Amino acid sequence: MLIQKLENLLLNATLLGRKKVVVAAANDESVLKAIKLAVENEIIIPILVGNSQEINSICQKINFNIQNIELINTSTIEESSEVSANILQNRQADILMKGQLPTATLIKAVLKKEHDLLKNKLLSHFALAQIPAYQKLIAITDAAINIKPDVAEKLEIIYNSVESMLKLGYTRPKVALICPVEKENLKIESTIHAVAIKKHFINSFIQNCIIDGPLALDNALSKKAAKHKNIDSEVAGDADLLVAPNLDAGNILYKSVTYMAGGETAAVVVGARVPIVLTSRSDSEMCKLYSIALAVCMQV
Amino acid sequence: MLIQKLENLLLNATLLGRKKVVVAAANDESVLKAIKLAVENEIIIPILVGNSQEINSICQKINFNIQNIELINTSTIEESSEVSANILQNRQADILMKGQLPTATLIKAVLKKEHDLLKNKLLSHFALAQIPAYQKLIAITDAAINIKPDVAEKLEIIYNSVESMLKLGYTRPKVALICPVEKENLKIESTIHAVAIKKHFINSFIQNCIIDGPLALDNALSKKAAKHKNIDSEVAGDADLLVAPNLDAGNILYKSVTYMAGGETAAVVVGARVPIVLTSRSDSEMCKLYSIALAVCMQV
Repeated sequence: MLIQKLENLLLNATLLGRKKVVVAAANDESVLKAIKLAVENEIIIPILVGNSQEINSICQKINFNIQNIELINTSTIEESSEVSANILQNRQADILMKGQLPTATLIKAVLKKEHDLLKNKLLSHFALAQIPAYQKLIAITDAAINIKPDVAEKLEIIYNSVESMLKLGYTRPKVALICPVEKENLKIESTIHAVAIKKHFINSFIQNCIIDGPLALDNALSKKAAKHKNIDSEVAGDADLLVAPNLDAGNILYKSVTYMAGGETAAVVVGARVPIVLTSRSDSEMCKLYSIALAVCMQV
Repeated sequence: MLIQKLENLLLNATLLGRKKVVVAAANDESVLKAIKLAVENEIIIPILVGNSQEINSICQKINFNIQNIELINTSTIEESSEVSANILQNRQADILMKGQLPTATLIKAVLKKEHDLLKNKLLSHFALAQIPAYQKLIAITDAAINIKPDVAEKLEIIYNSVESMLKLGYTRPKVALICPVEKENLKIESTIHAVAIKKHFINSFIQNCIIDGPLALDNALSKKAAKHKNIDSEVAGDADLLVAPNLDAGNILYKSVTYMAGGETAAVVVGARVPIVLTSRSDSEMCKLYSIALAVCMQV
């Protein structure tokens, strides 16, 4: 079933049954609030890893009864990451969630060879955004992980995202390679990348997505804007996935949903054997809950 | 008088009296419609340069009476650009507007040494955006001209924008250097640039703006988001100008105003002796009219 609205993520997750979420360095109020919400919505069973004294005191403060919840005491953030990665390695959890620790520390543990958690070629950030101005959900990548991906890395980022979308019920998502202009310009590297990526997809006869680019943001989102520029493309004005040219652009694209367009987002890191939920402290409660629900829905 | 809303640009422009706008390659329906609107709003006196037969026939079609308007016939886009640049060189017009020709052709004529039209160190794109979600107008640079500016070029882009904002009535605009994260990260070049730019501004004791960065888009636009990240900055949550790290990011930032946030924009190219209006065919009529009004207001 294709997810049409972020609210449906939650509904879908409920239908799928509770998934096990291991939370690394769970001693973080905003993360525990989100976990509490997800438990109340009956979509997850958490395993809390971290400073147990702090976790207990935060849970008391936010009225979260964790008597029946597994709690593993660790003394450093490195230990929390290691223990969490071990749990995933032993297939005792379905989802990883970041708590009170730097993303880099957690990712380092995930990428350690012996844990064998990297399923695809790389990890990438995948977001679903709901904006009042667009007719459907729009996926965005990569807003948080890959800084300046080359063409080969962009292909892997697209692969990660399309794989995620197929799990969410999309059949042939329309992928727009976003650039500042809609024509190849030898001075603008992102347009050269877009041309190379499109060519690769056409040549490889991959049939599970429709890819086009370079497209500027207006052409990707508005049929009218695309028509004004005489762009004839199945993707133009109807994109399902926006692929940003680099992190500078992807982060702005993702954050503009919330801070300029008054929209909502859900996001996970994909490419590992399990989805990784990396919410930011400034994310809304709904964003955090939707992100956990998105991770649950990707377990299908 | 500080411009608080884009509508006020038009009102302000009316109070300033008509400015002369030379239109290079004016044989373009969407440009002539915008010129017609601006004439009806009594903010400009146009000089139309281009294929006079085409111009006449378009004007007839859109009911634009140009009997009392200067019309200079040219046969190529290069000639249109040259003639327009000459008119500006001879100080016979206050504003340049792009018609039916590539931006590069027009810019080439503007930058020709003998026309002596470049006032500052470089040309840059300057936009004013109005979005429902933000408490005031927000300026954005650079969405269209400089592809991958280095630190020295970014300083010039900021100089161009701040100078423009002072003309618009700002006294000490708050400038946010947008990056994907709010801390220096040696792997993310935009954060290194932001640190260098901020240091330069502090050391040069420039008092006509308040600059801060690296700031992520959420921190720049939302006090709440900044507080969550413990960011203590006069600019955070109250930015007047967003400086994008590069064209890939700037173009997305600018276009997200219209195509994601349901907002309106006005934009001009600054740094030359006169503002240059470069609207795109897909821009709304209001955007084009506001852009002409913005150029008029910058003539103060």
